[in-house]
Amino acid sequence: MLDKLRRDVWKANRDLARRGLVVLTFGNASGIDRKRGLVAIKPSGVEYDEMKPADIVLVDPRGRVVEGKLRPSSDTPTHLALYRAFPGIGGIVHAHSPAATIFAQARRPIPCLGTTHADHFAGPVPVTRMLRKAEVEADYEAETGKVIVERFAKLDPGAMPAVLVAGHGPFVWGRTPDEAVRNAVALELVASLALATRHLDPRVPELPAYILSKHHKRKHGPKAYYGQTKEKP
Amino acid sequence: MLDKLRRDVWKANRDLARRGLVVLTFGNASGIDRKRGLVAIKPSGVEYDEMKPADIVLVDPRGRVVEGKLRPSSDTPTHLALYRAFPGIGGIVHAHSPAATIFAQARRPIPCLGTTHADHFAGPVPVTRMLRKAEVEADYEAETGKVIVERFAKLDPGAMPAVLVAGHGPFVWGRTPDEAVRNAVALELVASLALATRHLDPRVPELPAYILSKHHKRKHGPKAYYGQTKEKP
Amino acid sequence: MLDKLRRDVWKANRDLARRGLVVLTFGNASGIDRKRGLVAIKPSGVEYDEMKPADIVLVDPRGRVVEGKLRPSSDTPTHLALYRAFPGIGGIVHAHSPAATIFAQARRPIPCLGTTHADHFAGPVPVTRMLRKAEVEADYEAETGKVIVERFAKLDPGAMPAVLVAGHGPFVWGRTPDEAVRNAVALELVASLALATRHLDPRVPELPAYILSKHHKRKHGPKAYYGQTKEKP
Amino acid sequence: MLDKLRRDVWKANRDLARRGLVVLTFGNASGIDRKRGLVAIKPSGVEYDEMKPADIVLVDPRGRVVEGKLRPSSDTPTHLALYRAFPGIGGIVHAHSPAATIFAQARRPIPCLGTTHADHFAGPVPVTRMLRKAEVEADYEAETGKVIVERFAKLDPGAMPAVLVAGHGPFVWGRTPDEAVRNAVALELVASLALATRHLDPRVPELPAYILSKHHKRKHGPKAYYGQTKEKP
Repeated sequence: MLDKLRRDVWKANRDLARRGLVVLTFGNASGIDRKRGLVAIKPSGVEYDEMKPADIVLVDPRGRVVEGKLRPSSDTPTHLALYRAFPGIGGIVHAHSPAATIFAQARRPIPCLGTTHADHFAGPVPVTRMLRKAEVEADYEAETGKVIVERFAKLDPGAMPAVLVAGHGPFVWGRTPDEAVRNAVALELVASLALATRHLDPRVPELPAYILSKHHKRKHGPKAYYGQTKEKP
Repeated sequence: MLDKLRRDVWKANRDLARRGLVVLTFGNASGIDRKRGLVAIKPSGVEYDEMKPADIVLVDPRGRVVEGKLRPSSDTPTHLALYRAFPGIGGIVHAHSPAATIFAQARRPIPCLGTTHADHFAGPVPVTRMLRKAEVEADYEAETGKVIVERFAKLDPGAMPAVLVAGHGPFVWGRTPDEAVRNAVALELVASLALATRHLDPRVPELPAYILSKHHKRKHGPKAYYGQTKEKP
Repeated sequence: MLDKLRRDVWKANRDLARRGLVVLTFGNASGIDRKRGLVAIKPSGVEYDEMKPADIVLVDPRGRVVEGKLRPSSDTPTHLALYRAFPGIGGIVHAHSPAATIFAQARRPIPCLGTTHADHFAGPVPVTRMLRKAEVEADYEAETGKVIVERFAKLDPGAMPAVLVAGHGPFVWGRTPDEAVRNAVALELVASLALATRHLDPRVPELPAYILSKHHKRKHGPKAYYGQTKEKP
Repeated sequence: MLDKLRRDVWKANRDLARRGLVVLTFGNASGIDRKRGLVAIKPSGVEYDEMKPADIVLVDPRGRVVEGKLRPSSDTPTHLALYRAFPGIGGIVHAHSPAATIFAQARRPIPCLGTTHADHFAGPVPVTRMLRKAEVEADYEAETGKVIVERFAKLDPGAMPAVLVAGHGPFVWGRTPDEAVRNAVALELVASLALATRHLDPRVPELPAYILSKHHKRKHGPKAYYGQTKEKP
């Protein structure tokens, strides 16, 4: 069932490793079939280069396994919370990619200091609050999803496809699992650029709003003129 | 038409990715045929390892497509402005290579702190002013070319084959697309060295002028004695 | 004799190089057969990609060669001291991996600033005291083992599978040689994250104890629910 | 003539590129036949992966080409000055490897902060004074050799097989071209460790002399017990 989705999710997980976003088994990618309401996700603790499309697990909106022999990623409840709250997204990536994780550990947003950032993220990448003790002990992974959704109360997940969970690392999404991987690659690049730019000069101001807006609209929305078609997958 | 130029430009684009100067599709290389006045450039938003020589687009000096099925890079007007203003150059590279982009984001020139820098760039690598709101909204990519040319009013693009666009990233050139790629590799290296050197000691002075001049002339100009021939391509 | 152990140790040494934890010959891995009391360890000064399983040396608890034509690693007495003091471990890795070595050279523990750390190490990774002159001159490698054991007087080597030897570098262990390699990879990652996080903000506090505990127990101990089985090798 | 030496020097140059010590053509390796007084060295400005053993140039002590169709490296006079002053060395490497070049640009010695350093270099790696204007303009490359030799007036080139030329980069040597490459790899590693260690804590003291001495003697000299034989090549 859902062989194409499982293959796309398998490829997204493999690409996470190939693009250097994960080491060991610290990361996972998922995708959703909105019609059936089923989510395909990485099995927990399995090596990326040993994984096959058949190992990808299908779960229902409550996280119960519908198809697959392996246990799904322990982060599954976080993915499900995001799919529920953000109806426009089709794929999610979680990784401990170094530069983004550094901002998450420092509990700071990633400032928008250049056009590389503006091409992908319409403003500073936000950071959640730290989870409280009761939240961690009750239902940790589901509560992680809730603090992300809480942080997006006034944000558009279409224009800002990433978040940093304080003390943990980034969650990144897109319209497809592949777009989520690409956004995760872009996030890691802009985080590393921001780290070093603020290092070189801690007082560098953020990019002027008129350039941020111009660059984001070059690539996204109805007037986009970057790439070969206006209709991305 | 212009098959050799297109192949050279294709190779330059592919080398950008192979040498680690670009991630995803953040970068482009072009070349010019001065006799016909045509520019060969990367198609917009296409993956480097999927690109074929036939995908390279030929445009006229106004940016109209002369040959090719794909849309040219959205940065084409910037390339055209540089070819118009700098008649001695034959290839241009734009990348978001990390260390050079960090200086661009910090809106600072790259100081010449060592002979690696002097071998390629006859002084600090300059940074443009930030584009104004009206410039960004009117004709962004062409105005980007204009601020570069404005910055070079008193500079020789032959002795200084690179510039940083403030808040954006580097543009680099050479007599051929391949030389532009090599200069972009050198720029990235000297930017990363300068970052870390100033980090280790913020007061390190620039290289004395007599060493800068000696190293640059060892490789460039009529008395060059580096390499196998005085006539480079 | 002990062909499987020797093959596991050979693989662990090769993986050290493949995962970028060692350059030249700066590192070694070993494994123990608890029943026979024999330790399999890398030969001294041999290149990783030239090593064969047959080159792995078997030594007894006093370090005398039982099988093998080559001289064992000069760090053998340190490995033996750890196997003696920590009966639950089955494999040890020593490397000069950069980020962990930087903390060792700075003589500072690696603070726990995020969940990546908590997943593997139940608190800050400790650093030994500097060896004294008499210790260095008498029996250097055995004394290195002793200062590690001294540092673990109140620590559980099962929950904290790594230590930094002051001015030197990390020793890392696990239930198997392969688990020791994985812990060494995790150590290098969390050390590099901690370095850069403290760089971005020197006052970042450590991860709250309730998150540290939750993440560590997700992966380890009787209530672990990460991965496919509770019984790891 | 001297086919083995040329092959060793060719391999050393190729290894410089394979080990990531050089980009583009910024580096060269040489070797000497002490009996014949001939030096084999990289040709100037040639790509590492296109070079063949037959391209290696043989020069006499005055730098005149004895065999080979290509022009020798422009740094040849520096190599010759070192072979003349340091009779115990058999191979020399010059590279612009990043971390060592950063110290050279900052005009600072590399402090000995750990045992990785002590294993290869018996103390801080020294830096020359900056060349004077008259020296640069008269006979630049030969004068570069002279300031290195001047800096070693009270140093033993056997115990300290590397130097930083101020504002330029490292020269490294060994008993063979291969040992020079290995020492250059070690130099780059210890330079990067020292950079980051001082970054983490600017007041970290140097390694105590008794540990420095112990580690160096473990690997070098009559009482060495590291590796498989006391007689290294």
